[in-house]
Amino acid sequence: MALFVLKFGGTSVGSVERIAAVADRIISMRSAGHDLVVVVSAMSGETNRLIALAEQIQSQPTPRELDVLVSTGEQVTMALLTMSLHKRGCSAKSLTGSQVQILTDAAHTRARIRQIDDKRIRAELANGSVVVVAGFQGVDEHGNITTLGRGGSDTSAVALAAALKADECQIYTDVKGVYTTDPRVVDDARLLRTITFEEMLELASLGAKVLQIRSVEFAGKYKVPLRVLSSFEDDPGTLISLEENREMEAPVIAGIAFTRDEAKVTVSGVPDVPGVAYKVLGAVGDAGIDVDVIVQNAAAGNSTDITFTVKRQDLEQAREIVEGVARTIGAAGVSVDKKIAKVSLVGVGMRSHAGIASLMFKTLAEEAINIQIITTSEIKISVVIDEKYLELAVRSLHAAFGLGEEALAASV
Amino acid sequence: MALFVLKFGGTSVGSVERIAAVADRIISMRSAGHDLVVVVSAMSGETNRLIALAEQIQSQPTPRELDVLVSTGEQVTMALLTMSLHKRGCSAKSLTGSQVQILTDAAHTRARIRQIDDKRIRAELANGSVVVVAGFQGVDEHGNITTLGRGGSDTSAVALAAALKADECQIYTDVKGVYTTDPRVVDDARLLRTITFEEMLELASLGAKVLQIRSVEFAGKYKVPLRVLSSFEDDPGTLISLEENREMEAPVIAGIAFTRDEAKVTVSGVPDVPGVAYKVLGAVGDAGIDVDVIVQNAAAGNSTDITFTVKRQDLEQAREIVEGVARTIGAAGVSVDKKIAKVSLVGVGMRSHAGIASLMFKTLAEEAINIQIITTSEIKISVVIDEKYLELAVRSLHAAFGLGEEALAASV
Repeated sequence: MALFVLKFGGTSVGSVERIAAVADRIISMRSAGHDLVVVVSAMSGETNRLIALAEQIQSQPTPRELDVLVSTGEQVTMALLTMSLHKRGCSAKSLTGSQVQILTDAAHTRARIRQIDDKRIRAELANGSVVVVAGFQGVDEHGNITTLGRGGSDTSAVALAAALKADECQIYTDVKGVYTTDPRVVDDARLLRTITFEEMLELASLGAKVLQIRSVEFAGKYKVPLRVLSSFEDDPGTLISLEENREMEAPVIAGIAFTRDEAKVTVSGVPDVPGVAYKVLGAVGDAGIDVDVIVQNAAAGNSTDITFTVKRQDLEQAREIVEGVARTIGAAGVSVDKKIAKVSLVGVGMRSHAGIASLMFKTLAEEAINIQIITTSEIKISVVIDEKYLELAVRSLHAAFGLGEEALAASV
Repeated sequence: MALFVLKFGGTSVGSVERIAAVADRIISMRSAGHDLVVVVSAMSGETNRLIALAEQIQSQPTPRELDVLVSTGEQVTMALLTMSLHKRGCSAKSLTGSQVQILTDAAHTRARIRQIDDKRIRAELANGSVVVVAGFQGVDEHGNITTLGRGGSDTSAVALAAALKADECQIYTDVKGVYTTDPRVVDDARLLRTITFEEMLELASLGAKVLQIRSVEFAGKYKVPLRVLSSFEDDPGTLISLEENREMEAPVIAGIAFTRDEAKVTVSGVPDVPGVAYKVLGAVGDAGIDVDVIVQNAAAGNSTDITFTVKRQDLEQAREIVEGVARTIGAAGVSVDKKIAKVSLVGVGMRSHAGIASLMFKTLAEEAINIQIITTSEIKISVVIDEKYLELAVRSLHAAFGLGEEALAASV
């Protein structure tokens, strides 16, 4: 008999019918003799409805009161799911973040969990009940309701699993799990059975948005085995594990992530003196614009080029700021490019295998795809290319690294 | 500087615009230097929406979870109103029943308040904040969310006013206050400036449904001055007070209540032996049917007639039950009448004034209205008549007892 923490997102509990389906799934796990703690999100659309109400009143709603307001969304779901379990003859009890005592700091709308009291939950489990907990919410030391920010229900689930030393934390979503790349781009994309936390972090931050990044960091830190799976299908999904225990035949690369909503800014002819990179990027950061990739080419003579990428929607603002800075520091000019895409290979195997980068560059060269920027980290290589080659690049790399179903079948 | 507890019902907070109007009203009272605790209901329609969701899942939703569910309605309102106050630069803080510590028993969906901790509210008031409290909800000794039942927000407000020893509890509704009778029936109906608790209880239970009866009982018990007034107009409304301090010129009768949704059942030829009334009415009560008026005429010979009234919707069920009992006890027969109405004169002045009943009967006789049943209590006389005479009866009595604006003006 194991203890599982299950988390169902907004789509999975989006209607009374879907809540019934979740109840059926819980009953079948319960019949297998497991202890279950179930974390739920608000029904899809509900959080947005509540925020819209608040914004009709205040353009910037008071954070404390916004938390009081939106935390009702999860409270509604937990009550409905618990009723649905009762209807099926299953003992169950719902608990809010305050009732559990999910203690957080006082940073309303983006609180961090400090401590979870497991007494109440353990008592209900000992009574034979399924415990249904409102995700996304907690309580500060003065009893004020707090929320963990968007997607925070994943974090609630992982934190509960850590506090309860659960055997596994299962995140139910509307996809089957984590794929080698986006199946909409590569038909042959393969569902990964296992992936490491580090790989998941890189894949999530690069656009394979299955799990909230913070929950993955949290799971890694507290060594909680995490599984992503579909609430609509019977499939074990993807296990995010601590060890590099991938199947023997598994490729060195876990997956290929990509993003196409970035734009590139290049400042050329920058005087090559200490502090110029700060002057350029500091001004952009001060404006609240997130910068992703930054490269500075080695100086030729006494000037250099600095290139960075930002979200496409921030491009015009970034360009204006940088043009001002360029005049101040005496740079030659500023150019921008909206039509770029970033492709990244991710895999812990990269650490111990030489030749990953060269196979990547060779593959792209064979398709005549020009690489504009290259950046690397320990388990990731990213290239920025012309956006029009994105699909071609992802498909060729997916094949070259043997990530597809067919390649895997052939290698066995 | 006074301390007021204000309560706004669902209609008064039914939209973002109405919440804004409530905020304006609070600001103007705050400007006068008063300390304010504001109790809010769920936005109109919200509680029904939530109950409908629950009933899609369970025909009889689990009471504990139903409380978890519907208590979100008031939580939403309190957050939105507090934001609305913040937007106007007014310091304010919202508190749930659990955060205040409105301690109740564990009778979910119909909990009774046991104790209110005033510490948190007093601290916020001392900070200069308006305190906005979710009505209708509390928490039991184990931290479970409870609700007080429909209309419970009035009770919350009165209980808070009692606990805080407030100078007045003001219940804002969609009517201007308590009238001498229904203004839709009598054009000349007059808004009462004061009324006693006992009179209010009789008027409320008889159909002048302005306040929840339980909150009036509670206010009377804890001697909380209670005022009913409109949230849409500037008018002091009706003060429900402890003393019979009605204006010198005021009539002996406070008002005329009536109801037309009752039906009459008569069991005739009942053997006049001990226990028959119980046999007839016990069976009806056991079926969960509320009985209102009961009369048994003095026995002539060795048999008697028992007549009682029930809600019209319960008539068929009551008739079936009583016909069964009639056969068992050997009564002569059962007859029913759907077309009845009940008219009641209410007034504490009745205690000391003879002649009220005779003026009532005389007035009805002059209009050729036959009285079918008469019942009396210390401050009330009720008659059951043919429904078609209802409006005529109410108007004639209203005039005869000098309750209208014109009559009052003439007497001064």
